[in-house]
Amino acid sequence: MSKSLISTVSPLSPKNFPPIKSVPGVRLSGRAVGLKTSGAKDLMFAELARNTKIAGVFTRSRCTSAPVDWCKHILPHGKARAIIVNSGNANAFTGADGEIVVKNTVNKAVQLIGCSPKEIYIASTGVIGEPLPPFSIADNLASIRRGLGIRAWKTAAESIMTTDTFPKAASRLARIGNAEVVISGFAKGSGMIAPDMATMLGFIFTNARLPSQVLQKLLFKATKNSFNSITVDGDTSTSDTVLLSATGQVIGQPIVKRASDLIVADFYRALEEVCIDLAQQIVRDGEGAQKFINIIVSGAESKRAARVIGLAIANSPLVKTAVAGEDPNWGRIVMAVGKAGEKASRDKLSIDIGGNTITKDGRRVKEYDELLLANYMKKRDITISVDVGVGSGRASVWTCDLTHGYITINADYRS
Amino acid sequence: MSKSLISTVSPLSPKNFPPIKSVPGVRLSGRAVGLKTSGAKDLMFAELARNTKIAGVFTRSRCTSAPVDWCKHILPHGKARAIIVNSGNANAFTGADGEIVVKNTVNKAVQLIGCSPKEIYIASTGVIGEPLPPFSIADNLASIRRGLGIRAWKTAAESIMTTDTFPKAASRLARIGNAEVVISGFAKGSGMIAPDMATMLGFIFTNARLPSQVLQKLLFKATKNSFNSITVDGDTSTSDTVLLSATGQVIGQPIVKRASDLIVADFYRALEEVCIDLAQQIVRDGEGAQKFINIIVSGAESKRAARVIGLAIANSPLVKTAVAGEDPNWGRIVMAVGKAGEKASRDKLSIDIGGNTITKDGRRVKEYDELLLANYMKKRDITISVDVGVGSGRASVWTCDLTHGYITINADYRS
Repeated sequence: MSKSLISTVSPLSPKNFPPIKSVPGVRLSGRAVGLKTSGAKDLMFAELARNTKIAGVFTRSRCTSAPVDWCKHILPHGKARAIIVNSGNANAFTGADGEIVVKNTVNKAVQLIGCSPKEIYIASTGVIGEPLPPFSIADNLASIRRGLGIRAWKTAAESIMTTDTFPKAASRLARIGNAEVVISGFAKGSGMIAPDMATMLGFIFTNARLPSQVLQKLLFKATKNSFNSITVDGDTSTSDTVLLSATGQVIGQPIVKRASDLIVADFYRALEEVCIDLAQQIVRDGEGAQKFINIIVSGAESKRAARVIGLAIANSPLVKTAVAGEDPNWGRIVMAVGKAGEKASRDKLSIDIGGNTITKDGRRVKEYDELLLANYMKKRDITISVDVGVGSGRASVWTCDLTHGYITINADYRS
Repeated sequence: MSKSLISTVSPLSPKNFPPIKSVPGVRLSGRAVGLKTSGAKDLMFAELARNTKIAGVFTRSRCTSAPVDWCKHILPHGKARAIIVNSGNANAFTGADGEIVVKNTVNKAVQLIGCSPKEIYIASTGVIGEPLPPFSIADNLASIRRGLGIRAWKTAAESIMTTDTFPKAASRLARIGNAEVVISGFAKGSGMIAPDMATMLGFIFTNARLPSQVLQKLLFKATKNSFNSITVDGDTSTSDTVLLSATGQVIGQPIVKRASDLIVADFYRALEEVCIDLAQQIVRDGEGAQKFINIIVSGAESKRAARVIGLAIANSPLVKTAVAGEDPNWGRIVMAVGKAGEKASRDKLSIDIGGNTITKDGRRVKEYDELLLANYMKKRDITISVDVGVGSGRASVWTCDLTHGYITINADYRS
């Protein structure tokens, strides 16, 4: 079901799977249980130490999947002992049957671990609307648990892939007072990626000791600046989930009470870095992507307005096809700024591509050199900077180009 | 500049240019003046009888073109003697130079016709950001006027084309009391088409005698149900313009004072038919389009909510590529309904494609026959009906599929 028609790895992928630090209190396992017809790995199990706190951000879709409904239901409890993720089937739009699959999975995990059902998180990704056999996940939990290990990051990342062409993970260190903590995570997603987190899943773990309300605030902010600042095709899925788990398995860490405490600033910096790293890897695996596009909007009324304008540019099929064609067609950028609906001064608009100023004060500059720009457009990574001339709001947004590959993959994914 | 890379006519086009009735008081002319490097026709001149009233609807872009700024400025005056349209250059984002082109054109037309500058409407479509020589349009007005005729609808429609593969026009008769009036119009647009009227131009003429405030209300409503209910790629241009001109050259028509007068109902019916006909022709010329998609949303909270949901489906690249691949991938329709952000009952959602019920009450029906549906998907015209189960709001939206042709055209349009 989730076969990749274009099986070659994205040309924008990192050279190697990055080194990922283990997180005390986190053990991972992944294997194939037959949900993907290809026989590839399709089940991931993360077991977490007692007293692990958790935060989550979910899709804003009005037609959420059964697993998302379950996670939202238990999130206020703020504690977790396991995260169970299958790929190959989204368990979305499956009615009461879908809820039964979730219930069976949770019950089995509770029995194996000996915890509350409210500590079992579930996520599913893949085809929408295909019923899953009721025990297809539950029946595999005992065996997958036997494979748990502290270093299985790559296996875990591979087990949640659908049309992804490479596994995605990132790791950073941070200081909270004198204690050093680690933040490691993995993610999946390549199509249906958009703000509000189209089919994308992200699982981030730390050994920091932080209350769930603090985790929630930090994750929400980091998500806005990372997973919600990327777009591949403007579509939003029924299943998007980002979870941040904190095991508290750290020695000598001062107590943190509020997300605004200065002592947590370096942790937030590292968390945002992990989120941005994962988000950018998702864009680099955008279906059919040949170029990575970095869009920086400044001079907007607010950070929010800057992000809206950035996403209008990033979601414009005309901008994305122009980049695919290596054509510095800045007129389409003007069009996209105009359609964003946020305040922008046409007569102060500046556009810069790769350090080459194209427009200033509402018109093309005299020294504009199309040949120079045409050469820049041949690169793999393209940076577009736009100043809309009305304020000091600033945001970065990331996307990829729109190519024949996207059409080929999506005109044929399911059949 | 506006050469069509795929020069063959869209497979969804009407067989022939339709018969268009002349409108008393309207004379048209079109010719090539060198704005298109291809040598194709690129200037249209419509001269209107004295006392012609006019209404207009324009792009909501924040970076409007110089001609749009001008038309918005004079619209409150409500009268028109000429509409001058060039293709090949949008005269957008051209700063003060762009305003000078408009001023020179208006001044020359005023001199030729002997009217107020506030009666000269201008529209431009084509490449953004390329300066036009200051008198490139003005210098051609005297000669184009010599070609004016009452039957030149096809020539006029051809003169405003850019990437369009066929000229678009429509005509209807209507009754106001005992008087029969004619409504005829033409339009252009194939890419950058979206609500708020991406690069689309529409010019509609009638010999009815209606005050400009009445025209304005009728046009606004008709536009919402037609030009603002279509989408090709979700992009919005800097130049969109729809103008409705009423010459009043009719005998025996009762006086109309309000848009809500019952006597104007049949006129509105015919006006909306002309607008929908033109809007659908634009979709049928969508860049790379191989299939016409008719989306009917019912059961929404309001007509507005239904249109938002319809446009979310119509703008989804995943839905559009599924149709291109002749794949009845209804999971992507669920996804699009979910992302629209309007109220929808997941557990009452019904989806029907071409008369085949797929889902009911939030899950796939037992009698679902994928083979039957796969055969239907091979047709040129595809109808998707969605009932979201929360109210009685209903709307129709039209779009086309997303194909390799779209990428080919847009990755290479300007260079």
